[in-house]
Amino acid sequence: MHAIVIREPGGADVLEWTEVPDPEAGPGEVLVDVVASAVNRADVMQRQGFYNPPPGSSPYPGLEVSGRVAALGEGVTGWQVGDEVCALLAGGGYAERVAIPAGQLLPVPKGVDLVEAAGLPEVACTVWSNVFMLAKLQKGETFLVHGGSSGIGTMAIQLARAHGARVLCTVGTEVKAARCRELGAETAINYREDDFVRYGPYDVVLDNMGAKYLARNVESLAACGRLVVIGLQGGTKAELDLNALLRKRAAVHATSLRARPLNEKAAIVASVRENVWPLLESRAVRPIVDRTFPMAEAAQAHRILEDSGHIGKILLSA
Amino acid sequence: MHAIVIREPGGADVLEWTEVPDPEAGPGEVLVDVVASAVNRADVMQRQGFYNPPPGSSPYPGLEVSGRVAALGEGVTGWQVGDEVCALLAGGGYAERVAIPAGQLLPVPKGVDLVEAAGLPEVACTVWSNVFMLAKLQKGETFLVHGGSSGIGTMAIQLARAHGARVLCTVGTEVKAARCRELGAETAINYREDDFVRYGPYDVVLDNMGAKYLARNVESLAACGRLVVIGLQGGTKAELDLNALLRKRAAVHATSLRARPLNEKAAIVASVRENVWPLLESRAVRPIVDRTFPMAEAAQAHRILEDSGHIGKILLSA
Repeated sequence: MHAIVIREPGGADVLEWTEVPDPEAGPGEVLVDVVASAVNRADVMQRQGFYNPPPGSSPYPGLEVSGRVAALGEGVTGWQVGDEVCALLAGGGYAERVAIPAGQLLPVPKGVDLVEAAGLPEVACTVWSNVFMLAKLQKGETFLVHGGSSGIGTMAIQLARAHGARVLCTVGTEVKAARCRELGAETAINYREDDFVRYGPYDVVLDNMGAKYLARNVESLAACGRLVVIGLQGGTKAELDLNALLRKRAAVHATSLRARPLNEKAAIVASVRENVWPLLESRAVRPIVDRTFPMAEAAQAHRILEDSGHIGKILLSA
Repeated sequence: MHAIVIREPGGADVLEWTEVPDPEAGPGEVLVDVVASAVNRADVMQRQGFYNPPPGSSPYPGLEVSGRVAALGEGVTGWQVGDEVCALLAGGGYAERVAIPAGQLLPVPKGVDLVEAAGLPEVACTVWSNVFMLAKLQKGETFLVHGGSSGIGTMAIQLARAHGARVLCTVGTEVKAARCRELGAETAINYREDDFVRYGPYDVVLDNMGAKYLARNVESLAACGRLVVIGLQGGTKAELDLNALLRKRAAVHATSLRARPLNEKAAIVASVRENVWPLLESRAVRPIVDRTFPMAEAAQAHRILEDSGHIGKILLSA
């Protein structure tokens, strides 16, 4: 088969569509013929040499795919050859085939295009596990998501709205702000011109900036507020004001999906299927796709993601 | 009645046992004839002028008492004049009488002395709400409590052991270490000679030091570990390594009991009555009392607390 190989750590042009050995479905795994994958920031970090795949997973980038079941490994039940599926991966999605632990497979939601489904698993699992399972966002609470027009952002806005929360987000351009408002954000704050702190307090903040925003995120939390850091684009170390946190009885969580053990991933995927999939099938929540490239042009897709020139997900078709 | 009044912010000798107006039981409150109160670090901070009582609460220090119900305010049910009780307060415990929201009253556990019961509400509510309700310490997990010989520490060691956790603590002297081991700590680490990080990783850490220990607390957390900061004796601001937190999918919580709204305090007290009181009645958990002073000698009790010359609670008898 073909896959995108990272020739060496570096810029987008180290990504090479090349012949590699076919994967096989081990015990408990499902082999999937990939129809599409999607681009995540973690793929860029992996390409740059900063984020190695967890031990035992594929060396190729790609944390999610859609496609058709090609073969079942030993002991797998609940899936059949030919089923249209999408899946959360620890790696290997930029390829024509990939072997996936069965607990990480999802059916394609009814009414969703098979290609578009490739952009759902990572954002649905990330937003659901962090904003709802971990931070327990409640109806009527106020929620801030940074990077409202990203794949994560567009899913977070829609899911939080569908659960009756007030939603605010930060964005970098007026075009992105308008799109976020269409998706359900009450206010889209342009971080280049305005300070998100003054629109708070927030019960839950979903953050991808890390150190750069830590002090202001904590400052903007409401009593019993929960800050969930899922990205470190603004650095890793910053001063924490524990007195501010204590006075608010607040919490700082930091998490990631990729390194979790299989049983935790399977529990998240099962909860997403139960809680998020019905909202996709009823069209209360929609996949937001910016554009789709052929997988061989993954380098161009990475450049657009790195320039933040997109709204929603960038897909790669196999 | 008499109460301890803080003449002006300052050292222990600003505490004065003097005649003050009697309190009355407002709607939903219970008036209690105080038999004993207990000393907490928050009382010392209040005396120093660093921790004002929440709006509407008594200006006198004292966050817990035991005693007998003297009168019931409008709408109070479930208690009768003469009942032996103990209670969590927002202030006013260093006095002969105090009016208390009914949701913060507890019966004296069967088999516990009425004076000793004065030292239970604050430590039981603090440990239960933070270690169990918030951080959800599980059977088989590893728990570290800093200041193992303090009132909080001696309760935390016993409760965590009773729930089947492995317990470690830090202490400042060998005498305190021995007492903590008797109470159920597997290891009592002398922080003057040894580093608690090397005995980890810990699933839950209960911390009273704040800034001074933040980096090492985070370093010592296990995957999915929870750090709960309930005191800031080592300062308020410190660098947080979000990457370390993220790799572990860990959390930093900071909380306090005193400023919580009445409904949250009542929920905690109800959960303590349900979950901690049976362990006190079965003697699986015991009140640990260092010594008892007459309330008029509160200044001396404060001096001992400030010198950390005690193990367990220091009580004040009215």
